[in-house]
Amino acid sequence: MAQIYERVALIGLGLIASSMYWAMKRAGVAGEVTGYARTSGTRDVAREIGLCDRVCESAAEACEGADLVVLCVPVGAMKEVAAEIAPVLKPGATLSDVGSVKGAVIAAVAPHLPKGVHFVPAHPLAGTEHSGPRSGFAELFDNRWCLIVPQEGSDRTAVERLEAFWQSLGANTDEMDAEHHDLVLAVTSHAPHLIAYTMVGVADDLRRVTDSEVIKYSAAGFRDFTRIAASDPTMWRDVFLNNRQATLEILGRFTEELFALQRAIRTGDGDHLHAYFTRTRAIRRGIIEAGQDTDAPDFGRARRP
Amino acid sequence: MAQIYERVALIGLGLIASSMYWAMKRAGVAGEVTGYARTSGTRDVAREIGLCDRVCESAAEACEGADLVVLCVPVGAMKEVAAEIAPVLKPGATLSDVGSVKGAVIAAVAPHLPKGVHFVPAHPLAGTEHSGPRSGFAELFDNRWCLIVPQEGSDRTAVERLEAFWQSLGANTDEMDAEHHDLVLAVTSHAPHLIAYTMVGVADDLRRVTDSEVIKYSAAGFRDFTRIAASDPTMWRDVFLNNRQATLEILGRFTEELFALQRAIRTGDGDHLHAYFTRTRAIRRGIIEAGQDTDAPDFGRARRP
Repeated sequence: MAQIYERVALIGLGLIASSMYWAMKRAGVAGEVTGYARTSGTRDVAREIGLCDRVCESAAEACEGADLVVLCVPVGAMKEVAAEIAPVLKPGATLSDVGSVKGAVIAAVAPHLPKGVHFVPAHPLAGTEHSGPRSGFAELFDNRWCLIVPQEGSDRTAVERLEAFWQSLGANTDEMDAEHHDLVLAVTSHAPHLIAYTMVGVADDLRRVTDSEVIKYSAAGFRDFTRIAASDPTMWRDVFLNNRQATLEILGRFTEELFALQRAIRTGDGDHLHAYFTRTRAIRRGIIEAGQDTDAPDFGRARRP
Repeated sequence: MAQIYERVALIGLGLIASSMYWAMKRAGVAGEVTGYARTSGTRDVAREIGLCDRVCESAAEACEGADLVVLCVPVGAMKEVAAEIAPVLKPGATLSDVGSVKGAVIAAVAPHLPKGVHFVPAHPLAGTEHSGPRSGFAELFDNRWCLIVPQEGSDRTAVERLEAFWQSLGANTDEMDAEHHDLVLAVTSHAPHLIAYTMVGVADDLRRVTDSEVIKYSAAGFRDFTRIAASDPTMWRDVFLNNRQATLEILGRFTEELFALQRAIRTGDGDHLHAYFTRTRAIRRGIIEAGQDTDAPDFGRARRP
């Protein structure tokens, strides 16, 4: 594939950045890729495993001369990083990010933007419950979506170049405005994560059901929850604090609906339960048909032969 | 493997019964296996795909002369089936079931038991979101748990024979009393399923987030929920109606905890969120170490090469 950016800087070297690096190498779309992580231990690991062509000792150093800078830090750290690198961004460069929340990131980053730099926020919808520089792999974005959130007056050439870049990493791209993005993600990702965290916490709390039993007999339902609830704590803390309104709105709807189902259980209203469960089954079918998951009945187990 | 039962009867031919059949064939632990399903369409499918050595036209016919009868019908149908087959059960036979709830099943079945028949309830902790006679496969129980719930005065030989049988199908077995079983399952399976159903229903309801968007952009969290929420509606209706008390108790605890986390989001208490999320991560680690799931970061996707 042809080179899309001559110099790319990755700020923050966790799961997403490291996967981006391996996917860039696979596609051959970037010349030199620099990287920076705040903690020296992470930088050491990056050097050890060959993550980035050059690991720098400051964010500013990594960004100097870059054609594309991607902020891959937790949402709560975006503001500080943006302030630090703003002075060295070169005119004509594109600044992007991979945050799970877009409204708050734009509010944090936009004020620091120097003139002549194109700010094109993005959000790849991909992840695992693992974190850190060793957790990345080139295939993470394959056939996943990357949502691009152009700003008012965004340079179309810069937007389309970033889209071509994400496509070269294996993703499909789509454009969306920030407010709508944050609501859609509250439904499909943020609220489900909080719910999974809650349920796993409840299980851990119950004294009559010992830890070892909860773990030993974790059937499919709970096992899938624990996988979700094992995601990076800092990243998720920042997501909730920065997508507060939409997340609380969805959780309000969720609680209302849960109370109605609890009431149906208490009053023995089997028809209500059956109709509800039949309706939710159809959504799953839609997801499989949309190619966002496989139909294999493995619940995360190893494939059967 | 040596034969454990000469004649086995499976009543109800869905995911669990069909998987049991293929696992019995794999292990060679049963002589003849008969089967019965209430709807003629299911019996036709069973005959077409060779599920059971003999598909019968009534539950009583299938149970005649059987050494082991396993009720594989929804929990709400156990009572009627038990009444129907009781007269033909042969002295010395074992009657078992695979229901996800044990207290209610015992209350429904025990009164119909003829003298000389050993009632040994069981619950294999295995499943997928698929249902029906075509959904079974021999490996479903491999390395999963099957909980055995002996009754007061149960014949130990009958109990141990049933345990050997489940082990031959690939499962590990453990014994537990009914009340404790129902509480443990409320935590690890029943409450998580209701929560997943609820979240998927909420997503479906939201008019501002179109169906296609919810499906198209279903990130990991929501995608895992839809898989859980695609499970058989009749089975799950019966689970909730028949494990009412324990499920409502756990949901009460869940709601309490969720409100505390919502409050932390609303007030911006990041420390509370971070501490909570860090704690839940440890449980996941325990599940992987207990061998109940793999560590592969695939979220149900096809394995990477």
